[in-house]
This record gives sequence, C-alpha cells and structure tokens, in this order.
Amino acid sequence: MIFRQLFERESSTYTYLLGCTETRAAALIDTVKSEVPKYVQLLDELDLQLVYVLDTHTHADHITGAGELRDATGCKTLLGEEAHSPCVSTGLKDGDLIPVGKLLLKAIYTPGHTDDSYCYLLEHGGQSCVFTGDTLLIRSTGRTDFQNGSATAQYHSLFDKLLTLPDHTWVYPAHDYKGWQISTIGEEKQHNPRLQLGSLDAYVDFMHNLELPNPTLMDVAVPANRTCGK
Amino acid sequence: MIFRQLFERESSTYTYLLGCTETRAAALIDTVKSEVPKYVQLLDELDLQLVYVLDTHTHADHITGAGELRDATGCKTLLGEEAHSPCVSTGLKDGDLIPVGKLLLKAIYTPGHTDDSYCYLLEHGGQSCVFTGDTLLIRSTGRTDFQNGSATAQYHSLFDKLLTLPDHTWVYPAHDYKGWQISTIGEEKQHNPRLQLGSLDAYVDFMHNLELPNPTLMDVAVPANRTCGK
Repeated sequence: MIFRQLFERESSTYTYLLGCTETRAAALIDTVKSEVPKYVQLLDELDLQLVYVLDTHTHADHITGAGELRDATGCKTLLGEEAHSPCVSTGLKDGDLIPVGKLLLKAIYTPGHTDDSYCYLLEHGGQSCVFTGDTLLIRSTGRTDFQNGSATAQYHSLFDKLLTLPDHTWVYPAHDYKGWQISTIGEEKQHNPRLQLGSLDAYVDFMHNLELPNPTLMDVAVPANRTCGK
Repeated sequence: MIFRQLFERESSTYTYLLGCTETRAAALIDTVKSEVPKYVQLLDELDLQLVYVLDTHTHADHITGAGELRDATGCKTLLGEEAHSPCVSTGLKDGDLIPVGKLLLKAIYTPGHTDDSYCYLLEHGGQSCVFTGDTLLIRSTGRTDFQNGSATAQYHSLFDKLLTLPDHTWVYPAHDYKGWQISTIGEEKQHNPRLQLGSLDAYVDFMHNLELPNPTLMDVAVPANRTCGK
C-alpha cells in the first residue's frame, strides 16, 4: 500500500493519499483546492490513478479540491448523503464500502461536528487506521456549534463508534494545530482531555461553553463546498 | 517501535521521536526549543524515557531544544564533532552507532549544507529509514552558502552516500515547506530536480546561483545552537 499524509498550512488541514501498489488505483481524503497541482504532481510521480476523492464532511475552514480533481482526472467524488450536495458523484451512507484497487474503505457515519460527518476505516495487512475528519482530533474533538452540529450526537459517535475500534487503530485526523500527525484510539482514550469528562452531560456542557469564533473562511467555504469547491 | 514525526510551523522543522517498545528508551532528532513542553508531554503520555537528543547539524533557522531537554530529562545530546560545540555530551563521527534501547542509529557524515552535517540511518524490522537533516529534502537539497557549506561536498554526500542506500529506504528530512512529509531514496533519485542535473559541475553551478536570503533567525540561532540552545 502507498500512503501519504499531506499538510496544508493555511487551514492546518491533513489530506491523505492512499494507493494500491498492485492496481495503482488511488484515493484522496479531504483535499484543499489550492493544493490540487501538488496532488496531481505526486499522483503522477508515484504512478497512481486517482479513482476517488472523499470528503469527511462539508468543510467550513477550507475549500475542497474535489471538483477540480474530478475535472483533471475523471475521478469520482464522495461525501455523505446528508450533505445534500448535488455535485458529488455519490452520497455515502453508513456502512458503505469504497474499493480503491484492492484496498477497501468503510464509511462510518459519525454526526456531531456537522450532520454530514463521516469517518473512513481502512484495514490492511493486519493494521487498521481510521480517518476521523473533524470528529476525533489528536487530544481534542471537532467543534459542534454550526452546520447542524450536535455535541450529543458527537458524544455518541465518539463513544459508541470510534472508541469501540481496537486500541491499536491509527487515528488520522483532518487537522492538527500543534504539529502532531498521528495518534491511536488507545492513546486518545487515555490522554484526550475531552474523552475524560465522564458523562454525556459533562461533554455537552463542555462543548457548549467553548465560545469559539467562526472560521474566517466559513461564509465562502460552506457554499463553495456544496458545489464541490467550484 | 514507536515513531512520530512532529512539525514546528514557524521554521517548518520536522522533529522525529523514536522509541523502543521493549525498553521504552527514546531519542529525538532535530528538536525546536519552543516545542520542548510538547515533547515532554508526548514522551510522558507514551511512557518513554528520553536517552538521546540528536541534531543533524548546527541549525541556522531555529534554536535546538537539546539543552533544555537535557536539563529536563537527563538525556545525552549528540552532534557531529565538526561542530566543535563544547556543550554536547558527545561529538559524533562517521559510522558511530547510537543505541536507543534495542534500536540502533548509525551516523553518516554528509557535509555540504554545513561542514557538521550528519544523517542518521535506522534499520528496523526489514525497513530502513534515513533522517536526512538539510542534506536531502523532498524534491530539493539544503542550501550550501554559509557555515562552511560546500556544494561539491554535498554532491558527494548525496551521490556517494545517501543515494547508494536501497531505493525503498524512507527519507525523513528536517524540513519541508510544501506540506510533504516523507519520500524514498528511489523517489528522490527519480523525481528530485536537483539530482537530475547530470554532473558535479552542473550541481555546483546550480547551487551557487540560488541567491537565497539569509534565514531570519541565523544571527541568533547559530550562536545559540553552539551552546545547545541555551
């Protein structure tokens, strides 16, 4: 398997490139529009054919490269069906399987950050990894105060879904703001302060009191992402 | 083996944490002083004992965390003997072996970016990786125009040493400015534009004509790093 984690500095976004060594099929998760030329360069240099661009949700902090990449490569674009995004090739639902050559991604519906948030699970060669979008971050979780976000839904997505994955599962988030790149489910269970609050009520109370400013790009990014970033 | 690549945004520096699963001994390569509290947090959370802090060279773009980490943890600090740095625990020379629990790093002297530049090779579980400092970057190489840098020496370090490693060797550089994190020797041989110039003369000519501004922090960082960042 070919794997790359790529970083876009302005929005601190991690984009993931997955490639099948055998068939050369590839997928990109959570792309950023300004980085599209670099993705195309890397796909070309690694001799990979892009078949899917997936988003974990309708982003509010950056514009997806999905539409441009579809134009450039003919790939399909995927996003949760809850996004009601007329531009995507397929609206995903919980449990959907996405084949990337001989690799297989599984969509897990994890509402909370937004009502269209999905995580993608990959099991390969005895190792599992989960691309957690803005649902589970390293030592943090995604905010839940707009785009039909819900702290209650996020608590259930975290505790009833993600944290039931094996402890050794690698966690690959959509963002990190302190320069950390990777974690595991076990590590987050033990050291993520928001997962130590002890109850649904305490979690909801904590999330409701974050008082975060809106993302700078929100008014531009959300409408743009509803048309695949175009 | 425990492995983390950490990113410091201001100087675009990658720091590497290597840990031995069995003995819990750990090493950090190319630390940044402002990040020391985060390293200490992560070492603690991963239940690791820091035994070595290594620098690949005397940095001109950031201040090393070596001295502070030695004070905080009692670890040893390592740097090439050519640095003539009175503060380091040991001055390394070509071929030195550095045991980190059951992991073994090998120092490779690779002058060029500076005259005290080293790379560190790790072979583990059938996979090799090399921490290339500012000698080999992803699709680039480190500048050679100060601190006794030499484009000729760098050419030989690249072609006679690093590029003789197996193609599948992972390349972990000290910096990347475009958000890429990892490469391989084979990939760089094939796609790094500076490695396609065809001759020593062409390489030296190219490096002499880069006309780069000095790093902002150079006048502060170089003297500070000669005292382990303190």
